[in-house]
Amino acid sequence: MSSRFAVRGTDREIEIGTQFAPKFDEHGLIACIVADANDGEVLMLAHMNEEALVRTIETGDAWFWSRSRQQLWRKGESSGNTLAIQEMRVDCDQDAILLKVQISGNGVACHTGVRSCFYRKLTVKQTADKSLSLGFVEGPKR
Amino acid sequence: MSSRFAVRGTDREIEIGTQFAPKFDEHGLIACIVADANDGEVLMLAHMNEEALVRTIETGDAWFWSRSRQQLWRKGESSGNTLAIQEMRVDCDQDAILLKVQISGNGVACHTGVRSCFYRKLTVKQTADKSLSLGFVEGPKR
Repeated sequence: MSSRFAVRGTDREIEIGTQFAPKFDEHGLIACIVADANDGEVLMLAHMNEEALVRTIETGDAWFWSRSRQQLWRKGESSGNTLAIQEMRVDCDQDAILLKVQISGNGVACHTGVRSCFYRKLTVKQTADKSLSLGFVEGPKR
Repeated sequence: MSSRFAVRGTDREIEIGTQFAPKFDEHGLIACIVADANDGEVLMLAHMNEEALVRTIETGDAWFWSRSRQQLWRKGESSGNTLAIQEMRVDCDQDAILLKVQISGNGVACHTGVRSCFYRKLTVKQTADKSLSLGFVEGPKR
C-alpha cells in the first residue's frame, strides 16, 4: 500500500511546510493524544496506523490501532463513547497527533469506567533509608 | 540494571493497585505527554527511559530520552526553558505518563520557538476527484 500522505521532506519542510507528512514508527504507528475539546483535559494516549488515521480523517470519529488486540478499532464502538473530532493537530516533527474531541455516550474515555485514563496522581515519599517510595494519592474515581 | 519501579502484576493490579509499575516498550521507553499546569494546554510529547523517569522524580525537572540524539536530556538545559513538574500522572495500563508543568525561561516548549509543538491545525478538503487534500490552516506563530 503506497502512503496516502505527503512524502516527508527536509526537517524544515516537515516543521514549517504546509503538507501533512505524518511519521509512522517501525510498527507503522503514530502516537495520538486525545484531549477534551471543551476543557482541554487529557483523556488518553492511543496509537493509529495509516488506515486508522485515514478513517479518522474521513469519518470524523477517532479510529485507532489496538496494539494488544492487533486490530483496527473505532473508539467507543461497543461502549457508545465514540470520539467526535473537533480539531486535529500535529506536532513539529509530525510524529505525534493531538485530537480535541467531544465524547459521546456517558462521557467516559477510559475502559475502567472513568473519564480520563490518567486518573492516578503519583506521589513520592523519601523513606528512612533515603530510597524513594512511589505510590498514588488517587485511585480511579467513578 | 534492575528496575527501580514495582514489578508489573495482573491487569487488575496495574489498573487499580497502589503501586507505580510503568511499562517501558521494547526500546526501554515510555511515552510522556507534557501539558501546561496553568491552562492545561498540551505542549509536547516526548519519551523517557528508566533513568530519565528516575531523574524526573528525583529532581522535579523533566528529563527525557532523545531518540534522535540517543542521549539523556534535561529539557531546557540549553534554552533555559526547563519544565518544573507540578503534577505527574500515569494512565490505566501504566504505559503513558502525563506531566503538568510550569515552563521556565521565555515559556516556550517547542524547539521551533513556539509555546506548543502542536502549532498546526489540520484541515481536510475534498478535491474534485473526491480524493482528500490535506494541509494546515495555521503555521507556527511566534
